[in-house]
Amino acid sequence: MAFSLTILGSSSALPTTLRNTTAQVLNIQERFFLIDCGEGTQIQLRKFKIKFGKINHIFISHLHGDHILGLFGLISSYILFSRKTDLHIYCDKELENILYNHLKYFDGDFGFNIIYHFLNSSISELIYDDDLIQVITIPLNHRLPCSGFLFKEKPKPLKIQKEQIQKYNIPIKEIKSIKDGEDYISPDGEIIKNNELTFPPESARSYAFCSDTIYNESIIEYIREVDLLYHEATFKHDMLKRAMETFHTTALQAATLAKKANVKKLIIGHFSVRYKNIEPLLTEAKSVFENTVAAEDGMRVDV
Amino acid sequence: MAFSLTILGSSSALPTTLRNTTAQVLNIQERFFLIDCGEGTQIQLRKFKIKFGKINHIFISHLHGDHILGLFGLISSYILFSRKTDLHIYCDKELENILYNHLKYFDGDFGFNIIYHFLNSSISELIYDDDLIQVITIPLNHRLPCSGFLFKEKPKPLKIQKEQIQKYNIPIKEIKSIKDGEDYISPDGEIIKNNELTFPPESARSYAFCSDTIYNESIIEYIREVDLLYHEATFKHDMLKRAMETFHTTALQAATLAKKANVKKLIIGHFSVRYKNIEPLLTEAKSVFENTVAAEDGMRVDV
Repeated sequence: MAFSLTILGSSSALPTTLRNTTAQVLNIQERFFLIDCGEGTQIQLRKFKIKFGKINHIFISHLHGDHILGLFGLISSYILFSRKTDLHIYCDKELENILYNHLKYFDGDFGFNIIYHFLNSSISELIYDDDLIQVITIPLNHRLPCSGFLFKEKPKPLKIQKEQIQKYNIPIKEIKSIKDGEDYISPDGEIIKNNELTFPPESARSYAFCSDTIYNESIIEYIREVDLLYHEATFKHDMLKRAMETFHTTALQAATLAKKANVKKLIIGHFSVRYKNIEPLLTEAKSVFENTVAAEDGMRVDV
Repeated sequence: MAFSLTILGSSSALPTTLRNTTAQVLNIQERFFLIDCGEGTQIQLRKFKIKFGKINHIFISHLHGDHILGLFGLISSYILFSRKTDLHIYCDKELENILYNHLKYFDGDFGFNIIYHFLNSSISELIYDDDLIQVITIPLNHRLPCSGFLFKEKPKPLKIQKEQIQKYNIPIKEIKSIKDGEDYISPDGEIIKNNELTFPPESARSYAFCSDTIYNESIIEYIREVDLLYHEATFKHDMLKRAMETFHTTALQAATLAKKANVKKLIIGHFSVRYKNIEPLLTEAKSVFENTVAAEDGMRVDV
């Protein structure tokens, strides 16, 4: 089952001809989550062949233009495509006003609801919860209220050993409780231990998105041991002062957080346009945390 | 001296991977005018190597998203680039509110003024006037208040025949009046006719931008004999009903206007995304007005 992240934009502040501003699509078991929505996101979705009609949930970290300016065009296109499905947007409460001031000029039929879920960026909250997945916010520290997002699969059921089920002639109605870990008691009272009937479950996967933020060790408790961490690395560490002034992180710092949180893999991104070549940022991060990759627009990372 | 138009976007309503939404840059003698500003305009400017710091005047036809959504990113970038020069925007008065609702979230230093020039779309007005160029609005008929723009060079001075000036030993202080068409009277009273001293001036060039609009013959008086006409051609003529319902024009109609106005060259654009191949629209237009080209993103047309 899919758990894959596609980078739609990896530049900070300004788009370039090679990098759009921040946006990502996370596909967890064919649920598509859009994370941030920089200018041109709808064009990137087309370019990387992601059907944007499948996106029903949009997570907006904060209200700087490089994270939201693609929303207007995307929503405009949804109207033109006669979208019917509710669109959920998780965001700072001010975004509703910003969007409203655009939407009132759209004259297409607005056949769907936008359902806003306002975030409190000073705490961690459960903001999305379905049968498979939870999304929890991560308080970040930027110049505006800003939230990261932790996407995690719920613990998965045990996997049935089909041959054993046949061998003991276990009726279908018992399968659910076996998947939940119970033993099976046969009609003649024999107890079959659960571990004879099941394999261990697939592990529940997780992805944490942290952008934009100053270096902040208090996020470690949320990102600990995630399979994949995206952390902004706007600057190389020789620009630490500038990073701190602008509430951003250096590549070295992003890797330090990845290491301290013992994550499995790190993607760095949100690169300042001053870096025509981001290899030095990647090298810097890898010196601390080897399993790091540098985001590129169109890159897909499977967990 | 340059008089060249660069197409930055030629799609209507929705961007595609090949066509952005409406935006154009007109360079008249190194004055750069941006006409409309669809999503991703700043990316297109980079792609087609137009320095956007040179743009001081932006003309917005109307407030539909596919004509304005690039403004926020462009202005955001101007802030990040520490722009100092005034930025003039010619637009419907509502745009100030829309922009204000974004700009209040920008936290960079805002080192320049945005000077709004509000348009009355029901009349034709002179909205820009310098020593070389005038811009006049063209009332269009769309679903929202909408203006086209006629850019025209002012009549140019006569060109001096340098050899004749030397031959008659004419002092420099007389050159201006000769360029303005006056004869020269020598110190001994001889009258040298102006046409002995000058060549005819270069012709003053003109460009008319008409998008979005329903077919409307009342624009002919404004676009008559322009060197270059851009007219929207959202649909093929077999979709005339749809064109009329949505206040758009067909390729056949755009060419009919070009012919009736006796323009020199027509560019059609603002194509519906239903046309993967716009050759049939071009063929249709050429059947009425041969000197037609179909807009492509990145296309440059020199007058």
